[in-house]
Amino acid sequence: MGEIYRFVRNAAGRMVPTKVNGRRTVPFKGVHAYRPEGKKAAPPVRSSADYPMDGNKVVTDLRTALELCGLRSGMTISTHHHFRDGDLLSQKIFDTAKEMGVRDLMWFPSAAFPCHQTLIEHLDGGVIHHIEASLNGPLGAYASQGRMRGLGVLRSHGGRHRAVQDGDVHIDIAVIAAPSADMFGNANGVNGPSACGPLGYALVDAQYADRVVVVTDNLVPFPCVPWHIMGSYVDHVVVVDKIGDPGRIVTGTTALTRSPDRLLIAELAAKFVKGAGLMRDGFSFQAGAGGTSLAFCKYMGDMMRQEGTKARVMAGGTTEHLVRLLEDGSGAYIFDGQAFDLEAVRSMRENREHLPIAPFDYYNYHSKGFTSQLIDVMVLGATEIDLDFNANVVTHSDGKLLHGIGGFQNCLFSKCTMIAVPSFRDRVPIIVDKVTTLIGPGELIDVVVTERGIAVNPLRKDLIEAAEGKGLPLSSLEEIKTEVEEICGGPPDRPEMTKTPVAVVEWVDGTLLDTVWKTAE
Amino acid sequence: MGEIYRFVRNAAGRMVPTKVNGRRTVPFKGVHAYRPEGKKAAPPVRSSADYPMDGNKVVTDLRTALELCGLRSGMTISTHHHFRDGDLLSQKIFDTAKEMGVRDLMWFPSAAFPCHQTLIEHLDGGVIHHIEASLNGPLGAYASQGRMRGLGVLRSHGGRHRAVQDGDVHIDIAVIAAPSADMFGNANGVNGPSACGPLGYALVDAQYADRVVVVTDNLVPFPCVPWHIMGSYVDHVVVVDKIGDPGRIVTGTTALTRSPDRLLIAELAAKFVKGAGLMRDGFSFQAGAGGTSLAFCKYMGDMMRQEGTKARVMAGGTTEHLVRLLEDGSGAYIFDGQAFDLEAVRSMRENREHLPIAPFDYYNYHSKGFTSQLIDVMVLGATEIDLDFNANVVTHSDGKLLHGIGGFQNCLFSKCTMIAVPSFRDRVPIIVDKVTTLIGPGELIDVVVTERGIAVNPLRKDLIEAAEGKGLPLSSLEEIKTEVEEICGGPPDRPEMTKTPVAVVEWVDGTLLDTVWKTAE
Repeated sequence: MGEIYRFVRNAAGRMVPTKVNGRRTVPFKGVHAYRPEGKKAAPPVRSSADYPMDGNKVVTDLRTALELCGLRSGMTISTHHHFRDGDLLSQKIFDTAKEMGVRDLMWFPSAAFPCHQTLIEHLDGGVIHHIEASLNGPLGAYASQGRMRGLGVLRSHGGRHRAVQDGDVHIDIAVIAAPSADMFGNANGVNGPSACGPLGYALVDAQYADRVVVVTDNLVPFPCVPWHIMGSYVDHVVVVDKIGDPGRIVTGTTALTRSPDRLLIAELAAKFVKGAGLMRDGFSFQAGAGGTSLAFCKYMGDMMRQEGTKARVMAGGTTEHLVRLLEDGSGAYIFDGQAFDLEAVRSMRENREHLPIAPFDYYNYHSKGFTSQLIDVMVLGATEIDLDFNANVVTHSDGKLLHGIGGFQNCLFSKCTMIAVPSFRDRVPIIVDKVTTLIGPGELIDVVVTERGIAVNPLRKDLIEAAEGKGLPLSSLEEIKTEVEEICGGPPDRPEMTKTPVAVVEWVDGTLLDTVWKTAE
Repeated sequence: MGEIYRFVRNAAGRMVPTKVNGRRTVPFKGVHAYRPEGKKAAPPVRSSADYPMDGNKVVTDLRTALELCGLRSGMTISTHHHFRDGDLLSQKIFDTAKEMGVRDLMWFPSAAFPCHQTLIEHLDGGVIHHIEASLNGPLGAYASQGRMRGLGVLRSHGGRHRAVQDGDVHIDIAVIAAPSADMFGNANGVNGPSACGPLGYALVDAQYADRVVVVTDNLVPFPCVPWHIMGSYVDHVVVVDKIGDPGRIVTGTTALTRSPDRLLIAELAAKFVKGAGLMRDGFSFQAGAGGTSLAFCKYMGDMMRQEGTKARVMAGGTTEHLVRLLEDGSGAYIFDGQAFDLEAVRSMRENREHLPIAPFDYYNYHSKGFTSQLIDVMVLGATEIDLDFNANVVTHSDGKLLHGIGGFQNCLFSKCTMIAVPSFRDRVPIIVDKVTTLIGPGELIDVVVTERGIAVNPLRKDLIEAAEGKGLPLSSLEEIKTEVEEICGGPPDRPEMTKTPVAVVEWVDGTLLDTVWKTAE
C-alpha cells in the first residue's frame, strides 16, 4: 500500500527487501552460514495469585476471554491449523474482534486453508492488517494481487517456531482450538467429537504468547490426559458448540492420488529407496502431504512387508497407510506432527508408539539439532524444480502464491531428500531453468523422481553409485526437461511480475531467501 | 566466612538477610502478596549448524563433555535427584572438575542426600563453593556448623523451577543422569538397568541451562522413547558404566513405617478424609515422602476398596501402594513426580495412566496456576508444628538443618492439606509455640493429625463442621501440646543459636521466608 521497499541481493542471488512489516531483515547467507546471536524470547513471569485458586479458568464466551486478555488494535493473534480446512475458530475470533471494534490485527496461524477465504472480509474491512503464514488458495491469490496491507511472511513449520522462540514474532494472544480440555486448560487433540490428532503446532504459541485461550467443544473432568497443552500455560478456557470439522482434515493435499502417472512416480520413488539400499531394518522415512507422497507410503509399505523389512521411525503428516504399518509391526514408531486422516487420530489415541511430535524438537533449526535431520528417507512434493535442484513449493510458474511451505524446508535436512513430482502439470513443465520462487536450496535436494526418470543430485556421488545397475530409470534433470519441453511445446511462459513484493520467504534460520512479487494481471 | 549480613524482618516476623550469595533478596510479604515483575530467563539461541549434522552427540567421556561445555571456575552445575540416595554421578562430576583444576563451583542439585556426604571433601577443598538445594543429613549438619562458604538456599521443588525460570539462578551446565538415552540426547528414566522413573526434576535444567550433558549407562538406538528429556535441548551425550543405584531410591523417607503410633496416625488421617466427606468418587489425593504418608496411602486404598470409591488422581512420590490402586481400578491416574520404589518405575513404564509430571506444571507458583492446587487431599509430614499451624520440615527443635523442603510448600495449596505427625519424637514434643524454622505458613495448613487427636485449623470452619459427629478424635493443637508436654516433661529446649546465617528458606514466590542459623556447638 504505497510502502517503499529497498532490496538487496542475497547469497542465492534473489532480491529481498531490507525491511518487512517494520522489522529489519537479514538476507539469506547460505544454507548453514548464518549464526544467530542473543537470547530466546522471554514471556512475562506470571503468578498463580492472579489465577483462580480452584483452577477453574472457564469463562462465559470467546469475547469475554479476549476482553480479559486485553485484546486491542494492532495486536497479534495466533491459531493452529490442526483442523486444516475444517477450522471453525479463526472466523469466530475475527468476527468477535470486529464486534469489539478492534482493528489492524496481525493473524499468525500455523497455516491458512481455503476455508479461510471468508477472512478476506476482515482483511478488506481492516480488522486484520496482514497475515504472516502459509497462504493457500484464495488468501494466496488475494496477496498475489497486492491487496493485503503488509507483506505475507512465509515460514516453514519449524521456521514459525523459530520466529517465535527467537522473538521475531511476538504473539499477544494465542487462541488454541482443543478437541478436549479441562477447566484448568490442560488440552489434547485426540479425544472428543472434534478430535484432530496432535496439537504440536500450538505448543510454541502456548509457551511464548502473553495470553493463551483454550477453546473446546469437549470440556472433560480434570485431568484432561494426555496433556498436549499444559494448563499452566493457559489463561482462560472457553466452551463452544463446535471448534472444527475433523472431516475436513482430509483436503486435496492429503488424499491419495488416483492419477496413473503419479502412482508411477510414487512407485519409482519407493523402488529407488529399495534399489539404493536405503530400505533396511531400522531405517526411517517420512513423506509429506500431497497425493504422490501418500502413495509412496503405500508402496513403501508393500515392499517392506514383502521383504520383511522393519522401519524404526515412520513420520508424517500421518494417514491410514502409516497406521497400518505400525499396527502390523512393520514400523516401530510413528512421529506425527499432524493427522491427515481420522485413522491417524484414532491411532494416536490408541497406540503408545504413535507419538505426537513438536516442531520445537522436530523442525527447529535454532536448537541443538532437530529430529528430522535423522530421518533416512524423506519424500516431498514441489511445484517447480530447476536444473540446480532448487525447489519451489509456494508459487506456480505463473508466479501466483498458492501454497504454504509446511515442513518442506525443515525436511530437506534428512539423509536422503527426494522430490517426487510429475514432469509436467496441465501441460506446464515442472523442471525449469530457474525456479520462480526459491524455497529449497538445491544442495539439500538429493533426488528428483518423475514419471520420466529419476535424477540424482551430482553432489550425492554415494547415492548415484548405490542406485546404478539396479534397474532404475536414472536420468538427469536436463534430459527430463528437454523431453518434457518437446511434449509441452517449450518451457513455461515467464510470468509477468511487477516489482512490488507481496510476501517474503524465510529460510529456516530466519534470513530472507526470496520474495514473492505482485502479479501483473 | 566473615561476610557481613544485614537483616530485615519479613511479614512472618522472621529475620532474613538482605543479600544472599551476592543477590539482593525480597523479604516474604505474605502467602499471596508478592507479584513478580519482568520476564522469564532467556537461554541463548543455538543453531543446529553448530551441532553434528548426523545427530550423534556422543563424546568420549565426562571430562571431554565438561571441557566442550567450557567448564570453568565459578560456574553453576546442576544435577537431578531421581536416584535419591543412589546417585553416582554428582561425585564423578566434581572429581572431574577437581582434575581439571576448576574451583568455586555452585552445585545446584534438585536435592542432596546422605550419599553426598563424600562431596564435603570438595566443599572443604574449594572445588564446590556452596550448594543451593535441600541439604539432607551430613551436608545439612555441615552447613549448620557454618562450614560452607556462601549460604545454603532451601527451595521447594516448585521453587527451584521458579528460580531458574525467573532467572534467579543461572545454570551454566546441567548434567542429567539418564537411565536410557540415544545418541541425539533424547532420554528417559523408565528403561534400562538403572531405571529410576520420571526425570521431571531435570526438565527446567534442560530447558534453561546454557549447556546440557546427558550421561547414560544405557545408550539405545534412536529414538529413545518416551522422551522425558528432548535431544533438541542436549549438547553432549556421555556413556558410562553406571549412573546410579536404583536400589537406593528407597531411603529412610520412602519406606513404610512399622511404628504402631505412626500407623495409627496414618489410619486416623485416612479416617478423617472419609469422615469429613472428602473421599468420594472422582476425588484426588497425594501423600509425600515419609513412612506415615506412605502408610496413609495404604489405609486410604483399603478404605476406597471397601467402599468402592474411585479416585480420579493419585499423586506422589509414588510407591507400590498407589500402583496397586491404579492397577486394580481404584484410581484412574497416577501423577508421578518421582518414583519412591521400583514398582513405581515399572508401572510408569507399563501403565499409560501413570503419568510423569513436571514441577513446571505441577508445582510452579509463578505460572498460570499449578496442578497441585487442584488436589483434594494432601498428606504431608513435618518436624514441628506451632499453635498457629505453621510448619517446619527442615530443622528439628535443636536447630540443625537436616531435611529438604521437597514439594512441601507447593503441596500446601491443595484443597485440604493435612500434616500427619507423631505428637513427639525421642521425647521431644512436635507441637511448639513457634516453629524453629518457618517453612509452611499456618493459614495453608488445614488439619494436623497426631496419635493423640486431630486438630482442624479454625480458619476451616467447613472442615470442622464436616468432621464433627463422625467419631473422629477431634482436638486442638493446644490440648495436644499440653498433653504431650506433660509426658515429655515440658516443651523442647530452646536451641542455642548464633546470629550467623547458614541458609535461607525461600517461599514459593522466591521471597525469603526464614533463615537457618549456625548452631552454637
